[in-house]
Amino acid sequence: MKIDPERFLCDLHELRKIGASGIGKGVIRPAYSDADIAARKWLAGRMSDAGLRVHFDPVGNLFGLAEGPSILLGSHTDSQPEGGWLDGSLGVIAGLEVARAAHEAGGPAVSVVSFQDEEGRFGVTTGSAVWSGQTELQAADLMTDHDGVTFAEARARMAEYASGFVDPEQFKSYIEMHIEQGPSLDSSGDQIGVVSDIVGIRDMRITFKGQQNHAGTTPMHLRKDAFQALSAFNVEINDRLADIVTPHTVWTIGHVALHPNASSIVPGSVTFSMQWRDADADRLAEMEQVIRTTANGVSDKTGMSVEFGALLWLEPQTMDANLRLALEAGAKAVAPEKWRTLPSGALHDATNVARLMPVAMLFVPSIGGISHAFDEDTKEADLIAGLKVLGSAVTHLSN
Amino acid sequence: MKIDPERFLCDLHELRKIGASGIGKGVIRPAYSDADIAARKWLAGRMSDAGLRVHFDPVGNLFGLAEGPSILLGSHTDSQPEGGWLDGSLGVIAGLEVARAAHEAGGPAVSVVSFQDEEGRFGVTTGSAVWSGQTELQAADLMTDHDGVTFAEARARMAEYASGFVDPEQFKSYIEMHIEQGPSLDSSGDQIGVVSDIVGIRDMRITFKGQQNHAGTTPMHLRKDAFQALSAFNVEINDRLADIVTPHTVWTIGHVALHPNASSIVPGSVTFSMQWRDADADRLAEMEQVIRTTANGVSDKTGMSVEFGALLWLEPQTMDANLRLALEAGAKAVAPEKWRTLPSGALHDATNVARLMPVAMLFVPSIGGISHAFDEDTKEADLIAGLKVLGSAVTHLSN
Repeated sequence: MKIDPERFLCDLHELRKIGASGIGKGVIRPAYSDADIAARKWLAGRMSDAGLRVHFDPVGNLFGLAEGPSILLGSHTDSQPEGGWLDGSLGVIAGLEVARAAHEAGGPAVSVVSFQDEEGRFGVTTGSAVWSGQTELQAADLMTDHDGVTFAEARARMAEYASGFVDPEQFKSYIEMHIEQGPSLDSSGDQIGVVSDIVGIRDMRITFKGQQNHAGTTPMHLRKDAFQALSAFNVEINDRLADIVTPHTVWTIGHVALHPNASSIVPGSVTFSMQWRDADADRLAEMEQVIRTTANGVSDKTGMSVEFGALLWLEPQTMDANLRLALEAGAKAVAPEKWRTLPSGALHDATNVARLMPVAMLFVPSIGGISHAFDEDTKEADLIAGLKVLGSAVTHLSN
Repeated sequence: MKIDPERFLCDLHELRKIGASGIGKGVIRPAYSDADIAARKWLAGRMSDAGLRVHFDPVGNLFGLAEGPSILLGSHTDSQPEGGWLDGSLGVIAGLEVARAAHEAGGPAVSVVSFQDEEGRFGVTTGSAVWSGQTELQAADLMTDHDGVTFAEARARMAEYASGFVDPEQFKSYIEMHIEQGPSLDSSGDQIGVVSDIVGIRDMRITFKGQQNHAGTTPMHLRKDAFQALSAFNVEINDRLADIVTPHTVWTIGHVALHPNASSIVPGSVTFSMQWRDADADRLAEMEQVIRTTANGVSDKTGMSVEFGALLWLEPQTMDANLRLALEAGAKAVAPEKWRTLPSGALHDATNVARLMPVAMLFVPSIGGISHAFDEDTKEADLIAGLKVLGSAVTHLSN
């Protein structure tokens, strides 16, 4: 099989024009927008030209199907409201090029997919979540975007193209190529990242309730200041987590809502988000325990109350060992000394697809670690290296 | 002169009915609202009945003027959007009763005032600020409330009653009686507080700018997390201020705005309020220095930038020694062993009036330290004790 980097880059730039935010910039292609649907129709044409059978499912997932049992490659072509040109598109177009080359060579059988709403206009990785059974279609249909549009209304925009759900049994495995969206490869100077795991995520709202009061007349020693409780919690949680984390573990307080949030009032309560991610489910559970204990300790010490919101979570997903070996063999051949394994801190469709078949992912660097922004970019040489590793892995798996 | 506690309580409860939030509850009488204007018209009638000459000035300050050089007593009758029944009203009605009793007794000459917009629908203590020259009328006219109504438009609602500004030269001194609005007297069990100083205030917005990023893909050691900078600043400022403050000094971070304030994004910037109050101007300046140095230190250590907003301030105001002696004599007589001196952590009209004449304040307890809330209250015995101290001080000053 002879993959063609020029043809791949040409398609990638063609797709970039649909919903472009400007020449040489990012894209505006939220799920089910005119631009997203136009991109999928264009892609369907390219799939057909590549000898694949085009199939839209009821939620707008677009498959280019090879005959018989095949390897599935792909990602998504919808974007954030202000998205980069490579996020999702890279994995789809790389998959298309490999499938096309394979078809031209008379094998192996390679199918391609662009999942719908990976970027979460409605839920989280909605298209692959429904297809994989992670989320029921009936439940998804009730989800709404920020404007109150339901998923059912949105997917009806693509109803004219839709057939039934594709039977996953025809696929032997799934490989998703993606930009890293973080700085690890860019800062280490590596060209290829073979993903070890997609991290699990836990997200919980925590509320400290103290006593709202006058910021002039309330002496310091009589205050029950919710911001001070949050600050004390933050210091203690940073200390205590340091003992149990790895260099890949992350935790974030990204959302803070003080009440009443006025400069002359001692804040009476604060609700904040505590989010943590790791590739190991046991570590995630241990961190949860430490977080709850620490928050309870702070509330005891300060005479305040603490409330924990619902825990949102997705389990970590370990990549399939065989698929990883194939990707590593490709990486060694294409980018010797310039590849490494790393976990994915971002979520991807692969997490859902893992319910159905073995999955793996490979990353190429994001310049400056930038993603979900118009100025997201990757060096052309790295894009081509990734394509070659993907092609090599497919060949490896078919031998 | 024979002051009458029953008459005083009766007037206080009459006033409570105007703009009442419910029977036996607080009041809704923001400056220039229908209820505020109705309360002022009612008060003008009571002043007139008490033998005082009624005078509204161009901003709605209401004076009940005695003949010749007089002592001025009062406070304000406007309220917070959800105000207590005593905040401001107590000082005005106590002043009315003392003036009425003095008039009946044929002297001394006592005038009464209800300043307008003490609660800051537009500025800060706006009515007394304009009258005292702290704020120019032209500048005040441009101020707007949260709905975009200008001060000029609001005060036009009272234009039909308005004459010119009252000449302050006719007043020998100003005494303001007020509820404490804090917990000091309530917790010590004292009945009377003679105010030593009204604290000065400094308020400054501080912004840390780091780097907004993905909360999954950005390793901890590469983050420039604005919330972490705020937390580090808070811990350090608490430590460093501890060395230079008194038990009466307060400092507060009451307003926090993270950006973009989303649980899955490492916050790129935070703007927060830093407010501090003390009765000593030198200490306020020293605290400012420590705050700036600490914020700069945090930004240096974390590789972030820091910006300081405009410094808002009012200088501390020491109460007049002679007036204090008169109040202390009254307190010793009325509430022996149950009075003390204390600073005022809240701002009052007296700060502005001090530009024009000697001023002093006396406090009665707030139950539970509650104020700026419908359930603000004070024991009846404490209200009467305060009235008696005020009357005693006026007699003392006139002998």
